[in-house]
Amino acid sequence: MSIVVVGSVAYDDVETTRGNVTDALGGSASFFAVAARFFTPVSVVAVVGSDFKAEDRQRLVDRGIDLRALEQREGKTFHWHGRYHEDMNVRDTISLELNVFEGFAPNLLPDQRRCDYLFLANIAPELQERVLSQVSTPKLVAGDTMNHWITETHDELVKLLSRIDILTLNDEEARLLSGEHNLVKAGRAILAMGPRVLLVKRGEYGVLQFSKEGMFAVPAYPLEEVVDPTGAGDTFAGGMMGFLARHGRVTESSLRTAVVYGSVMASFVVERFSLDRLFELTWEEIDNRYRAFIDLIDSHHSRWITQ
Amino acid sequence: MSIVVVGSVAYDDVETTRGNVTDALGGSASFFAVAARFFTPVSVVAVVGSDFKAEDRQRLVDRGIDLRALEQREGKTFHWHGRYHEDMNVRDTISLELNVFEGFAPNLLPDQRRCDYLFLANIAPELQERVLSQVSTPKLVAGDTMNHWITETHDELVKLLSRIDILTLNDEEARLLSGEHNLVKAGRAILAMGPRVLLVKRGEYGVLQFSKEGMFAVPAYPLEEVVDPTGAGDTFAGGMMGFLARHGRVTESSLRTAVVYGSVMASFVVERFSLDRLFELTWEEIDNRYRAFIDLIDSHHSRWITQ
Repeated sequence: MSIVVVGSVAYDDVETTRGNVTDALGGSASFFAVAARFFTPVSVVAVVGSDFKAEDRQRLVDRGIDLRALEQREGKTFHWHGRYHEDMNVRDTISLELNVFEGFAPNLLPDQRRCDYLFLANIAPELQERVLSQVSTPKLVAGDTMNHWITETHDELVKLLSRIDILTLNDEEARLLSGEHNLVKAGRAILAMGPRVLLVKRGEYGVLQFSKEGMFAVPAYPLEEVVDPTGAGDTFAGGMMGFLARHGRVTESSLRTAVVYGSVMASFVVERFSLDRLFELTWEEIDNRYRAFIDLIDSHHSRWITQ
Repeated sequence: MSIVVVGSVAYDDVETTRGNVTDALGGSASFFAVAARFFTPVSVVAVVGSDFKAEDRQRLVDRGIDLRALEQREGKTFHWHGRYHEDMNVRDTISLELNVFEGFAPNLLPDQRRCDYLFLANIAPELQERVLSQVSTPKLVAGDTMNHWITETHDELVKLLSRIDILTLNDEEARLLSGEHNLVKAGRAILAMGPRVLLVKRGEYGVLQFSKEGMFAVPAYPLEEVVDPTGAGDTFAGGMMGFLARHGRVTESSLRTAVVYGSVMASFVVERFSLDRLFELTWEEIDNRYRAFIDLIDSHHSRWITQ
């Protein structure tokens, strides 16, 4: 089943210890969509400026992503400039220009309003709410947010949480939203706010999943070289939700597999700048790393023999 | 089969955000021994001062730990004073007094020299070497070390590494020893120095295991409250090696199970100060948390149904 994602399509300037890129294709919806498209059809609801390059549009279309609801407006595309520390878990935002994103009022196409799977990427809760209200009977709604919305639009966000099935946050955001430093307490407090599932993204330390069934913890796939962590969280969400939409059933078991696939996709995107690695990725590579990932976390080390 | 451990038996002053203790029983050999004793017989080679309390000796003896080679000397017992930050992965050493440990020259008893399993806790590589030379044909030698020995006695340490089967380090130590910031590269570099297995302890983020078979990653068991992380690494080593000695065979599969048991034991010790939690721990609790731990990391979420 297909997924609708609403979020940003952006140009990023990124500096890491491995190099720099300027005006590289980015944005939460781009990373999510390209990752999810390996599993299932995806359509993007977003806005870009008149500077948005035809070749970037084409790269997304070539991956089979539905861009009918990618609005193009007079003005500049959303632009982010970030710099990562040697410890790539830490980054500074040098500048952030909303540009055409400022007046963004997402409107879904008639067929998008009937979608089963909806991902509300990190945008204002007000806009997330606007999109959610346009979808008639979604089967699964997942959403992401960030520090800024947690502090500045706390009430709108909390109101929205009761309508979200799967919430993704990083550990710092989970602490901020819950007011609890301890992640187990934070997880429990956030589940009490409404989401059925909370996925806490911990960068190189992996993901911690909270649900009524308990906790599930996966490490990140250990890589020899991380070039650019930008988009890892959205790529994770894309792989996770892509798998769920393809699988068609959300159970504790399929959710755990989805978290592994999300982690696998995230492990690729950080290997190169921007979406470069995802654009050249093959299913064979995903398959191989999925197996390597299962071997990495299998405490019995016998899965491929016993099955 | 029984284990011989050489290391420190100490008194600790510990300050954490959850409280303080003074002159609490500690030391690498104490934590290791009490944890390992749940699995197999353990004898301790260490030295204490004339201030060592009879009741502390009794507590260890009551747990069934062999203290025939715990030397008592005129002077004060090794004393450590540490303070943990709000982020308990970070701690400052306020003071460290070697005291009677300064002239420590470990001598194994005849039966200890024939031991199969030997753990060289974090002491000078020179002393680790001295002990190792006294053991005739060990089946498995594991060892730990720290920043101080890596920088100050680098050559002695590296020489020893070729005779150690399982090396445990924290991530900072692995980076320092290998000169590689990236843990995958660090792991590979350290394996090339001799150990068959490297276990990188990452505190609340769990353990990363490197061996010729590849990598195995386990998270730490997420706890609602951590009272005192002191001794977690040695407790981990005790559970890990205790399981291996009891199991009797070291394979990739038994090693992974051992790492899980080590993680389980470590998850208990941090729940209270000093060795308090380990002293009151039961097998039933270990069993229950082992199952909870497997459930935490099982990507298929079906183990207890399919087996």
